[in-house]
Amino acid sequence: MLIAGVVGVGYWGPNIIRNLVANKKFTVKYCSDLKSQRMDHITSLYPTVKTTKDYKEIINDPKIDVVAICTPVFSHFEIAVAALKAGKHILIEKPMTSTTAQAEELINLAEQKNLTILVDHTFLFTGAVQKIKELVDSGDIGDIYYFDSVRVNLGLFQHDVNVVWDLAPHDISIMDHIIGRSAESIAATGSDHVGNGLEDVAYVTVFYPDNIIAHIHVNWLSPVKIRQTQISGTRKMIVWDDNSPSEKIKIYDKGIEVVQTTDQIYNTLIQYRTGDMYCPKIPQTEALAVELDHFAACLESGTKPISDGYSGLRVVQILESSEKSIKNRGKEIRL
Amino acid sequence: MLIAGVVGVGYWGPNIIRNLVANKKFTVKYCSDLKSQRMDHITSLYPTVKTTKDYKEIINDPKIDVVAICTPVFSHFEIAVAALKAGKHILIEKPMTSTTAQAEELINLAEQKNLTILVDHTFLFTGAVQKIKELVDSGDIGDIYYFDSVRVNLGLFQHDVNVVWDLAPHDISIMDHIIGRSAESIAATGSDHVGNGLEDVAYVTVFYPDNIIAHIHVNWLSPVKIRQTQISGTRKMIVWDDNSPSEKIKIYDKGIEVVQTTDQIYNTLIQYRTGDMYCPKIPQTEALAVELDHFAACLESGTKPISDGYSGLRVVQILESSEKSIKNRGKEIRL
Amino acid sequence: MLIAGVVGVGYWGPNIIRNLVANKKFTVKYCSDLKSQRMDHITSLYPTVKTTKDYKEIINDPKIDVVAICTPVFSHFEIAVAALKAGKHILIEKPMTSTTAQAEELINLAEQKNLTILVDHTFLFTGAVQKIKELVDSGDIGDIYYFDSVRVNLGLFQHDVNVVWDLAPHDISIMDHIIGRSAESIAATGSDHVGNGLEDVAYVTVFYPDNIIAHIHVNWLSPVKIRQTQISGTRKMIVWDDNSPSEKIKIYDKGIEVVQTTDQIYNTLIQYRTGDMYCPKIPQTEALAVELDHFAACLESGTKPISDGYSGLRVVQILESSEKSIKNRGKEIRL
Amino acid sequence: MLIAGVVGVGYWGPNIIRNLVANKKFTVKYCSDLKSQRMDHITSLYPTVKTTKDYKEIINDPKIDVVAICTPVFSHFEIAVAALKAGKHILIEKPMTSTTAQAEELINLAEQKNLTILVDHTFLFTGAVQKIKELVDSGDIGDIYYFDSVRVNLGLFQHDVNVVWDLAPHDISIMDHIIGRSAESIAATGSDHVGNGLEDVAYVTVFYPDNIIAHIHVNWLSPVKIRQTQISGTRKMIVWDDNSPSEKIKIYDKGIEVVQTTDQIYNTLIQYRTGDMYCPKIPQTEALAVELDHFAACLESGTKPISDGYSGLRVVQILESSEKSIKNRGKEIRL
Repeated sequence: MLIAGVVGVGYWGPNIIRNLVANKKFTVKYCSDLKSQRMDHITSLYPTVKTTKDYKEIINDPKIDVVAICTPVFSHFEIAVAALKAGKHILIEKPMTSTTAQAEELINLAEQKNLTILVDHTFLFTGAVQKIKELVDSGDIGDIYYFDSVRVNLGLFQHDVNVVWDLAPHDISIMDHIIGRSAESIAATGSDHVGNGLEDVAYVTVFYPDNIIAHIHVNWLSPVKIRQTQISGTRKMIVWDDNSPSEKIKIYDKGIEVVQTTDQIYNTLIQYRTGDMYCPKIPQTEALAVELDHFAACLESGTKPISDGYSGLRVVQILESSEKSIKNRGKEIRL
Repeated sequence: MLIAGVVGVGYWGPNIIRNLVANKKFTVKYCSDLKSQRMDHITSLYPTVKTTKDYKEIINDPKIDVVAICTPVFSHFEIAVAALKAGKHILIEKPMTSTTAQAEELINLAEQKNLTILVDHTFLFTGAVQKIKELVDSGDIGDIYYFDSVRVNLGLFQHDVNVVWDLAPHDISIMDHIIGRSAESIAATGSDHVGNGLEDVAYVTVFYPDNIIAHIHVNWLSPVKIRQTQISGTRKMIVWDDNSPSEKIKIYDKGIEVVQTTDQIYNTLIQYRTGDMYCPKIPQTEALAVELDHFAACLESGTKPISDGYSGLRVVQILESSEKSIKNRGKEIRL
Repeated sequence: MLIAGVVGVGYWGPNIIRNLVANKKFTVKYCSDLKSQRMDHITSLYPTVKTTKDYKEIINDPKIDVVAICTPVFSHFEIAVAALKAGKHILIEKPMTSTTAQAEELINLAEQKNLTILVDHTFLFTGAVQKIKELVDSGDIGDIYYFDSVRVNLGLFQHDVNVVWDLAPHDISIMDHIIGRSAESIAATGSDHVGNGLEDVAYVTVFYPDNIIAHIHVNWLSPVKIRQTQISGTRKMIVWDDNSPSEKIKIYDKGIEVVQTTDQIYNTLIQYRTGDMYCPKIPQTEALAVELDHFAACLESGTKPISDGYSGLRVVQILESSEKSIKNRGKEIRL
Repeated sequence: MLIAGVVGVGYWGPNIIRNLVANKKFTVKYCSDLKSQRMDHITSLYPTVKTTKDYKEIINDPKIDVVAICTPVFSHFEIAVAALKAGKHILIEKPMTSTTAQAEELINLAEQKNLTILVDHTFLFTGAVQKIKELVDSGDIGDIYYFDSVRVNLGLFQHDVNVVWDLAPHDISIMDHIIGRSAESIAATGSDHVGNGLEDVAYVTVFYPDNIIAHIHVNWLSPVKIRQTQISGTRKMIVWDDNSPSEKIKIYDKGIEVVQTTDQIYNTLIQYRTGDMYCPKIPQTEALAVELDHFAACLESGTKPISDGYSGLRVVQILESSEKSIKNRGKEIRL
């Protein structure tokens, strides 16, 4: 049985606790928050969970195996360093840290101590992303042409980060997981309409080798909610509509074929291919439950989580570079 | 009665002829094409229209008032120069020319000769765009935050131009017309998956003063056809779905309100506003018919068309800059 | 403060308790169920609620003002009679009873004792139905032509009632409320595919005066979930799509105009009118909370609930008649 | 080469001529109409087609093999009798005749003379219906539970027939073709809101053996256009949305399983099964072209068309019975 403590029980922490409690491999001993009202809510639901305002109490408890860090991003690094130094495995909210330097330091620390970092890129554990990953890895899709993701809504403006730091960690972690290669560079644009220096509309292009291009559109000012991702390849094309209750993933047997011709003017001819569409059943399991099973299995076997510290680092790198590129109106930033 | 000749009766020319014939202000005397088969098709429909393989015959005919140029873009400039020099008004397919230098030269020539250029940015004459323009100009939408347009499909690859030159003239001319201000600069990215140097996926950001941002996504490799434009402002937000047969334009009474607070940490608070949605009836008149009425009215009164040479020039400028920016992975190009 | 007891805490009872607890006018003293496991669930959430396996304990408690009856339909009558005889107001699940005779008896009993019956036709208290009712009553829709409702899904087959008794109480109560007149007769058809005598697909036509026609399609065997209602009138037409998260109600400014002509053959001409569509904002308040506010207000003021015993009776009448008509393949049953 | 004459070139006749002209097996010699303007339109498109106001000229021409009857339904019988008596094969618009007696007489006449009747139930020749028929006949769908079809719109009111005679021939002919069995009886309801005795809203239930139930909803007064058909079976379920440009047919691997149990109260348990959805590519060929190929093949080989006189008769029977049932508020009419 893995004994866990949860630091931060505001918005997301209660979901982590609920899933830890429901999981046979974990037990929750402690939770911590600066607001006692939030902790009271937890003890009303789970009377056996201890509470403390000082997260260091959790970290210093030798019985604790795992610390889940569900605080605002600016505090991740400090808490994570303390937890790793105390020999705890960590589950850390996304984005992992505020800077790539911090992410690298956490990775190093964990490797020195032989500890495991799981970054809570929850979407990687959804049935939809797992199905897409399976389709791509099996070769069904062929070589990827592009990854295009739109995540827009009349959303909750954040006070301390722009729309890229707020929404794009989802898309970037999914993109990184699906494409499975190292990005070369990024170019991003955006605009701030409130005047506080935090962009509310942004467009991020990510360049990969072999002409794979990825693009992410995030927006807090859209009257309609769109969560749509397209992944097209040489063999098939996927459209994932996360808002659709019953037809989340559609796989189109469509594509082009490039034919060499003897035509004098144009030496290539491009032909179209269209076939059936197919919409696989997606398991309804809660992603967080799948994630915690995976975490427990990794801790048991000593293997790396699919959303390990490096995954978290790559996401932070792209976030950091996007911010820099946006301030320079699309300037390419090498990764 | 305005006497017209039509150069090029391949894909779009026949539509121009059909609408000229149906319009009481115009009569079609001539058409010209390199392929006699195309001209035979025209004479089978309109037996009184004369044909010629040499477009100069049309231009040299002193009876001709207007020359409609419906040939591939690379030939626009040569034919337009000849027509203007011969004292003819011109209707010219979009994009107007292959370079901004050419577009400027045509504008100069027309101004010297006191002739009218209408660039066939057909979308400007649709009920949908006219309704949006009316809403924006009336102040209903408030100050524009952003213009975001997606035009994707498993489309006809062009042999000589990339996807931006092929599809984006629609979006750029609409954006230019709706926003009605001078863009400052652009940054674009894209990718070519066929290996012939012509991008099939592209993303173009256009920067305007006052933090207005515009973005255009064009794509020949999408399994689904999307033609959707969002225009959000301080008062209301518009979604235009050109694929929808009956609900093309939706106007959302939604927005944000920025409130100054005395909060110690964050001095602004952003509040949301959501209200009714409304979907105005859009007239079904064919855009080309409206365009030709407008052209005739401009020729009569000596006023400038809404899609005049300058409109055509601004579109070509953005196309040209986009191509340059794409080759430089998002480098900002000042306009 | 109204003191309530809840009989039956299986599927729907817990929602009633949650809303009674949250409402300032009510307090919940008791709950009862045959399964102690269900009651344990309630006390884990609301430790102050007493439990009993014998609902008569609740009814005999002189402190209790209101009894909520959330048991299977076959037991409604017995419990309701006991509660009314003990002088309690009742909130009763839909359908009110298994027969019209029972419903009539409950109404009589309540009138004799000056007690209030509220039938839990929850949909009547949704923002959507309240908006439609307001539109119809204001005259905006004009005279109603028809009411057409489809409620289909691959649904939970019931063991003791057919699909009409299971799903149609929603549609019938809404129809009755919106049209606000007495139906004349019904004709219904249906089919049982499992072989247990309970129809899983059914179609119910309800005839009203003045050629108003209503139709309800309920189906447990549909691969897709549809919950769509149309109400068309002489002035406007409403489409209510209850599955739509953001555009539940659309009001179309469409219609026909009948013109008398001097045409020799046909002496009427029918013209079409199409205008804007408009989608009002619908409040998101939970219907059950609105219903309980209404119940409390009725109990205070002594007025009749909009879903009183007569409303419940009219629904049961149509259910009963539908069953009879279905067994006779569409035979008209006078109401 | 089959030599054809076309009687009636108003709304649909020109489409018949266009497809006959394009078909290598047919040539069009004649057309006839009471309005010379309609015939002028034909000769402007097809100068070699002769015209006459008197359809008997066509019928009396010994060169003519096939007469296509595209006049209003009340005149079908007279023209068809004349054509068959003159030894011509006939293609006849739907509905075949105004009464079942007439349809039977035409069938008898054709059989005596060894002539072929093809009723123009065009939908049977669409890619969508052919795909559905193929799925049903292959056993993929299993045994059919129900056929449910909705065809509604703010439609063109007809002056001489109700909405069932106008719209339902499509649905009835498709239902008849797909189910492939003899219906037992029908029960229908409807309402007339204009006051001319012609229903504008109608609901038709058709009873088949083995508890198969079919239902057709036709409506001229709907603000939205819906053309949706569901066919559910023991193995799979089909939804055909004829308005969808790219996803017309969806096949759901969903269903129920009836399990016998030892439960004391209920001896059957119904379990649900949900799996993938699949959307086959539908050929885009024009249905009328496919129909004429089929007609030519039948005439060559002497086989019966799939939409032969009996198919036309069954449709007329259901139309006639529906009208009778509607006037009697749902009374069952045996077929």
